[in-house]
Formats: sequence, C-alpha cells, structure tokens
Amino acid sequence: MANSVNDVRYELALASRMLANEGVLDAFGHVSLRHPGDPQKFLLPRSRSPQLVEPDDVLEFTLDAEPVRTPSVRLFAERVIHGCIYQARPDVMAVCHHHAPAVLPFCIAGVPIVPVFHLGAAAGETVPFWDQQDEFGDTNLLVVKPEEGRSLARALGAHAAVLMRHHGATVVGHDLRELVSRSIFMCQNAVYQLQAQMLGKVVPLSPGETRLAGAINAMPNVVGRTWEYWSCRLAEAGRMPPRRGKAKSRAPLSKPAKGKAVSRQRTRS
Amino acid sequence: MANSVNDVRYELALASRMLANEGVLDAFGHVSLRHPGDPQKFLLPRSRSPQLVEPDDVLEFTLDAEPVRTPSVRLFAERVIHGCIYQARPDVMAVCHHHAPAVLPFCIAGVPIVPVFHLGAAAGETVPFWDQQDEFGDTNLLVVKPEEGRSLARALGAHAAVLMRHHGATVVGHDLRELVSRSIFMCQNAVYQLQAQMLGKVVPLSPGETRLAGAINAMPNVVGRTWEYWSCRLAEAGRMPPRRGKAKSRAPLSKPAKGKAVSRQRTRS
Amino acid sequence: MANSVNDVRYELALASRMLANEGVLDAFGHVSLRHPGDPQKFLLPRSRSPQLVEPDDVLEFTLDAEPVRTPSVRLFAERVIHGCIYQARPDVMAVCHHHAPAVLPFCIAGVPIVPVFHLGAAAGETVPFWDQQDEFGDTNLLVVKPEEGRSLARALGAHAAVLMRHHGATVVGHDLRELVSRSIFMCQNAVYQLQAQMLGKVVPLSPGETRLAGAINAMPNVVGRTWEYWSCRLAEAGRMPPRRGKAKSRAPLSKPAKGKAVSRQRTRS
Amino acid sequence: MANSVNDVRYELALASRMLANEGVLDAFGHVSLRHPGDPQKFLLPRSRSPQLVEPDDVLEFTLDAEPVRTPSVRLFAERVIHGCIYQARPDVMAVCHHHAPAVLPFCIAGVPIVPVFHLGAAAGETVPFWDQQDEFGDTNLLVVKPEEGRSLARALGAHAAVLMRHHGATVVGHDLRELVSRSIFMCQNAVYQLQAQMLGKVVPLSPGETRLAGAINAMPNVVGRTWEYWSCRLAEAGRMPPRRGKAKSRAPLSKPAKGKAVSRQRTRS
Repeated sequence: MANSVNDVRYELALASRMLANEGVLDAFGHVSLRHPGDPQKFLLPRSRSPQLVEPDDVLEFTLDAEPVRTPSVRLFAERVIHGCIYQARPDVMAVCHHHAPAVLPFCIAGVPIVPVFHLGAAAGETVPFWDQQDEFGDTNLLVVKPEEGRSLARALGAHAAVLMRHHGATVVGHDLRELVSRSIFMCQNAVYQLQAQMLGKVVPLSPGETRLAGAINAMPNVVGRTWEYWSCRLAEAGRMPPRRGKAKSRAPLSKPAKGKAVSRQRTRS
Repeated sequence: MANSVNDVRYELALASRMLANEGVLDAFGHVSLRHPGDPQKFLLPRSRSPQLVEPDDVLEFTLDAEPVRTPSVRLFAERVIHGCIYQARPDVMAVCHHHAPAVLPFCIAGVPIVPVFHLGAAAGETVPFWDQQDEFGDTNLLVVKPEEGRSLARALGAHAAVLMRHHGATVVGHDLRELVSRSIFMCQNAVYQLQAQMLGKVVPLSPGETRLAGAINAMPNVVGRTWEYWSCRLAEAGRMPPRRGKAKSRAPLSKPAKGKAVSRQRTRS
Repeated sequence: MANSVNDVRYELALASRMLANEGVLDAFGHVSLRHPGDPQKFLLPRSRSPQLVEPDDVLEFTLDAEPVRTPSVRLFAERVIHGCIYQARPDVMAVCHHHAPAVLPFCIAGVPIVPVFHLGAAAGETVPFWDQQDEFGDTNLLVVKPEEGRSLARALGAHAAVLMRHHGATVVGHDLRELVSRSIFMCQNAVYQLQAQMLGKVVPLSPGETRLAGAINAMPNVVGRTWEYWSCRLAEAGRMPPRRGKAKSRAPLSKPAKGKAVSRQRTRS
Repeated sequence: MANSVNDVRYELALASRMLANEGVLDAFGHVSLRHPGDPQKFLLPRSRSPQLVEPDDVLEFTLDAEPVRTPSVRLFAERVIHGCIYQARPDVMAVCHHHAPAVLPFCIAGVPIVPVFHLGAAAGETVPFWDQQDEFGDTNLLVVKPEEGRSLARALGAHAAVLMRHHGATVVGHDLRELVSRSIFMCQNAVYQLQAQMLGKVVPLSPGETRLAGAINAMPNVVGRTWEYWSCRLAEAGRMPPRRGKAKSRAPLSKPAKGKAVSRQRTRS
C-alpha cells in the first residue's frame, strides 16, 4: 500500500519532468492528478518548476484548491484551475496547465488550433478559446479566484483542452499517460499548423478522421512505445525524479491510496 | 556467417537510431530492410521507438507483413507499408516510414516537395502525394490493411518517396545508406523550401540538374563521409546500439544471411 | 563583509551566465550592477563573453564609465551604456545590453515589441525605439561616446527596455533578478509576437492587463521558482561560475559593500 | 619551426570544428588556408566532415588544386573552389565553402543577403550571386572543373562572400579568424533578415554604417572575445581537435612554415 502511494507521487513527478523535457512546460506550468483513493481530492506539487518536481513535493488538496495540511512551502497561485475542473468533470483524472511556446502564437492571434495530423487528433475536433477579459475585465491573467477557475472549466466543457487568451492552455486526460501524450501531440500539431499556414492552406482532418485517429494514442501499442521513449529521453538528459526516501517522507497522503488508475498504467506498457 | 546475420540486425538498429538522432524519426516511424538472403522476406524491429531499437529487436516478416515466428512482443501496426512496397518494387532494399516535423507542413497544406538544393535532388524530381481519404474515406490514417498498403505502393510508383496526407512520408532506397541519406536530405530540402517560400519565390532545380545532382549521395566520397559523420554524432550522443549478446540471441534469421548488400556497404566507407 | 563583496561579484557572474544559457546573450552582450555600497559606481566584467564571466572578472567603474583602477585587461567598448543609464535613472540597479536573436528581427524591421502574453508584460506597455543614425549619422553602431550613451538613456526614459535599431536591446531592472526575468520574458514575448503575426493578427494586452501582469515576475512565488529553475539549468549545463579564490583575489571593491540589494535577493527565494 | 607547422594544421582543424559547432558547416563544407610559407600552395583537409577533421588530415595542394603528394585518402571533389580563389585573390589567406541552413533559403529564392545588423556588416555591402546554370547549363551543381572554379572566383570578385544558387556559399578572409567570424556573422545576419522580412520591411545598414561596422570583427577586443567563446563552446561539446602525435606524423608540409599569419593570430587574443 505504501508503495502505491509512493508510486502515485513518483508518477506525477515523472510526468511533470517528461512534459518539461519535451518542451511543453518550462519554468512555469503544473500537472495534477485526482487523488486515486479519494475523488474529492487532488494531488499537485508545491510551487516549483515542473522539471525539478520531486515525489516529496507532491501535496494534497481539496477540490476547492485548499491544502489538506497547512503547508510549510509556497503553493501555486493557480490551483483553482485544477480544482474547478475536477469538480466540473468527474471523468477527468489528470490536468496540465502550460504556456508552451507552440500554443502561445495561437493564444495571441486568437486562431483556433485544429487537428492537422493523425496524432494531433488527440486534442479533439475543437479546442475552445477562453478570454479572461470577457468576464473579468483587466486582470493579471492568472487564474486565481474560484470564479475564474469555474469560468475556465465552463469554457473547457466536455473538450480535451482549452486555449487561454494571452496566457497558454489547459489540457485534461482520463489518466496521466493520456494527458502526457495529448499535451505533447497538441503542441506538435500547433507547430505544424502554423508552418502549414505559412506554406499554403491548412486543411484539417475530417470529423470522422479526428474521431478515429483520436483513439490512436490510447492503443496499448502506442502508449507503451511513447512512455518508454519519453522516459528514456528523460533518463538520457539526467532528469529522472529521485526515488522518495522512506525515512524523510514529509506529507503522507491522507488516505491509503488504492493506486488504481496509475498502477494500472504502469503495468500497461 | 553468424557475423553477417548479426551485422544486418546491427546495421538496421544503427540506421534507425541515426535517423532518430538526425530528427527524421521520433517516438514513431520505422525502418526495414529486405532480407539479404531471401528477397521474399523483410526485417523490421518490434514495436519500439527507433532511437531505442536494439539488434535483438529485429524480427523477420513475410512480404504480406506476417511475422515468420509467432512473436512474444508487440508489432508495428503499419507493417503493410513495408511488405507492399517490397512486393511492388523488386529494386527496393530498404524502406523508412516517418512523421518528420520537416515534411508535416507539406503533408497538411498539400504542397509538393520539389528539389531546391543539390542534395535535395536525392528524393527525385517528383514526390507523389497520397491521400488515404481518396480511396478509403474516413480512417484513423494508419496504414494497416493490405489494400491500404497496396494503394500507398501504387502512389509511390517508381519514385523515391511518397508524401502521406495528414500523416508523414515513406522513403525507399536501394540500400540502407541510400535510404538514410535520402531521408535526411529530403527533410533538409523541405525545411529550406518552406523558408525560401517565406522569403520569396521557390525556384526548383531543373530536371537535368535533379538527375545529375541526385547521384551525388551515391558517390563513395560522399557515402563514406556522411556515414562517418552521422555515426560520430550518434556516438557523441551516447546512442549507439548495443552489440548483440551471443548468449541471449533470441530470434535468429530463418536463413543464413549472405549479408551482401549491407556488408558491402560497411567496407565501402 | 568580505562575503558580501564576493557575493555581489558572484551574483553578477551568475546572472551573466544564466542569460547566456537562456539564449539572451551569446558571444556578446554584458550585464552590470550598480555598486551596492556606492551608487556613484557600477560593476561590470572585463571584456569577455558573458557565459565565461568569473567573479574575478568583475571590475569597478565610475558613472562616466572609467575604471576605478587602471586595468590590466581589455574593457567593453560600450561601457557608457551602463554609466549613462545609472546617471539618468537613480532607480535602476542593474542593466543588460544584448543582441538576442529574438529581438533582432524587430530591431531590423522597425516593428515595436508589444506585450502579448502575461509574462511579456514585464517589459511594460511600450518599448521605445532608438536609432543611432538619427542623431549621429553613420557610425559603426556601437555605443561608445558619452553623448551616444546619453542619447540612448534619453530614449529609454522611464521605460524598462529600449530597442536599438540594427543592433539589439538594453534592459534595466530594480535588482538583478528583475533584470534577468524581464530580459528572458521580453525575448519570449518577441518570439511569440513574430509567430502570432505570421499566424494572423497580433492583439496586445490592454494597458490595464499590462500593468497588472507586469507585477507577476516580482511575486516571491515566481522569483524563487524562476531563479531556482534557471540556476538548475545552468548547473545541468556545467556552466556555474567558479567560486572566487580567496588567495588570488585581484581587484577588491573600493568600499566594503553593504551587499544590500543582492544579498536580500539571495534570501528571498 | 616544427611547432609552427603543427600549429597551422591544428588551427585549421580547430576552425573547421568551430564552424561546424556553430552551425555553419555540417556533414559537408570545407575550410582551407593559404600555405603560410608558400603562397602558391594551400592547405585543405582530406575528404571528411569538418567536425571530425584532425591536424593529420590536413594536406597540401598546388593552386590548381592538385595534391602535392600522391594521396592515400579521398579528397574533396570541390578543391578548385579554393585553388581558383587563391589564384584570383592574392589578399585572401583563408576560404570556407558551406551549405549553412541559414543561407540556403536565399540561395533558393534568389534573394540577396544584405547587412541588417552591425556584426552582419562583416560580409560587406554586397554579396554577389552565382548561378552555375548560367555558364555551364545542367550540372550536378558541384564545382569540380577548373573553369567552374574560375567562374565562381570571378563572381566573387573583390567581395567577402558569394552565394551559390541552389547550393550554398563561399566566404573568404584575410586570416583564419576573420574567416570564422565573418562566416558565423553572415549566417546570423541571414537568419535575422529572413525573420525581419516576415515581420515587415527589411531596412539594411547604410553604406557608411556597413563600412564602419564591418571593421568591428577585426577589433582586438572582439577577436579575442569571440575566439575564446567559440573555443570554449567547442571544448564544452567535447569536440576539440586532438593534438598531432609527433610519432605518427604523416604528411609534413613541403616547406618549413613561417607560421606568420596563424601564429600571430594565436598571440593576439
């Protein structure tokens, strides 16, 4: 049981670092996971760049984005992004908020990202656009108030991702690996879409192609291959997360984790 | 003789890793080789990212893309790409299917890649365009059915490469080294073509220049130089394939390989 | 006290290397700090590429850009950039002059950089444009005469940065960390602005958003996170500055440094 | 004296690797030096990718591009580029031929490279354009015949560089360090010019600015700084050339080198 809890923290640190290593996250951005043993809680690292997150940095939050234990460390200001989406979307098990260079030009020009290659279909036919200005006027563009988080979650709706005007994107997944591959493929799609537009006309996949190709990144064949690849690249860069020390464990999860979602993933590849 | 067999597997792993290291392949894509001792078979790794392929991962397939031995590992879904091309093109000894970032914008915009610099002539005057949608309607864009593979091979025709709408490209060669250099030069050509178009007007090589310059990458002078360079870069990145362990050899080739095509290459540089 | 002096030199070398490691500086460019113990002096390395600067390279200058001690090493030709800005702007504690690839296209096309994402607001609503040609006619474009430095400082005015036609940019900060983050975010902003323009229309932040978001990079939450991240990336690249040897100290600061600005920063994160 | 000869070979290997490390050269391209002891000869490596060139690879050629000693190794096909330029331009001491990604778009679109930032002035006000097709019709675009080399040298004229349609560029220098910095700055200039054009209008330096700024990269201040920087980057990448073994010296220069041009450079920094 203790292993499962450690596994969950480790997997979240691994996913954070992987997304940083693949250029989705940089100094900023964060990845969370719904608590595997309690759907009314979620797990999110303390305020730290995602490439540096360690299993011990992972803390537990209620769905209104309050820490379960009084923290001795700084927290991300934008925790409500995660909490409000977990509230609105019971099917979502993992959330990533990022400012990837690939999507920023779309966030600035207000141009929709559409699926332009088979793997890009992972983000779905439509990625809605959310402009904080519409509902809240001038802000610092950070999503920190509960009502801002709820507004973003409404814009996301039943989609796989939402673009945030002048800011970045938020992506969701049914598990951590779907989240990781969807985030990466959506960024690749954005890069190709921009270049295709410079070259000529962007012709997106048809709705039928998008639906069919959108399932590719859930094929066991593919999940295993990409996870091994991104892991090896992370190891090659010397950026694997440290294993959690048994002695110095700081903040055990409030309930013994069933470890279902994540440990199932681990054996899948 | 045993060395020749090992050489073939090793060279295929080397080429896979080299193409990954040069940015043609990423988590996806695959390289195959017609069986050097039996033209009715081909060699292809098990489902694994090309940068990670080891000699032991290389399996044997019939030209209808069925594994010669019942595999205990996952296989690439798109094996028919290789099988159908080896059936249709007796001159082809090596095939690479990839989703290189360099070609994707062309696959999306539907703009033809034309030879724009001397080394880019390696892909020939015309790179045909194949749109799976034309013949098969909505699919997930993977080429998995024999009829899809045959359709792609027909589109390739006698050419050196074919672009696949919303998907990537497939490149062929008369030997592994021609395949590698052609794949790399075609990607460089695509990058320069896109940038030249942003700068002004793209003027391609004349047909005569294309024919003459297309032979450059077969000059012994050039083959030796590029193979040494890409090998050194791979070694510098710490990504050379492991040598195949004698003890734990898993799936010996069905016939003793003559090792002609590949071992001749090795001594050529 | 001696530690504070060493700290200041070390922090300046660290900031130089960090900005080089993040792509703002290359063979050229320089970072200075107002002398923490004497506002009528500033600290600037000897002529050396910023990635290579060591604490021992840091020299002391008067605000008219003359070295306090006769130097035995070469000096940067453009010292007046720093001196004239420290004279004109008592609030400025740190200055960076650079030729970042991200800003050069704007310096050439004469297109203003405007804030297009929340972190880009760090450079303010307006980045003025200075063309040396206007006041001085044909020059080699280096800013070496006092009157050239004063002209540039006038163009900067009360802003956070100034673009220099056909040359680069100069950025200022109230402390070294603000300078570093502002320089990096401004470059990211420039990259995204260029790509957004290629994609469609660039819509900048509103003045209110710019004012509010401009304060993000001073949030303790953010300062600590970015400084840790950029430091770790520098360490990962093996580029941390050497600690200053006690024995071979070459040019001690003329007055015992109070070490206020910088040592406060150090404990902030 | 022997040291001087070794120095010359070493410096040439160093410059080749430096230009490869900075992205000017790749698998292809070559750098030569006029023989420091005999202006009727030049030094050029055997056919090998420039990043891999070792001092022992450097051979001696007459100005009609014939090897002084019968070689046991393969030679570059395009040696006449060097020989014909040394014949036509007594002031030229060093030549680099390359296919840098930065210049290829200009070679394809037929758009002139013009100086757009102060360091870019190193390539002069005009970079002429040579199209092999004009005089020789369809070729493989390699410059291998003496008449092709002479035609290219005529197009170069008294300029610092010449663009070659569909092929690359050839750059010349009065010494090796001028050649290296000019080649690098010209590539940076090309990248910025392309992006400036995408952003708006390209405004080049005035003729007066170009003349004045063109001298910057000969300032001792600058030569020392860039040479240290590019050397350190090469060392950091683990790509420094090996020192020439005394025992296994293969092809001593035909005359004891005076070692003037190059050894003077060495002490300059």
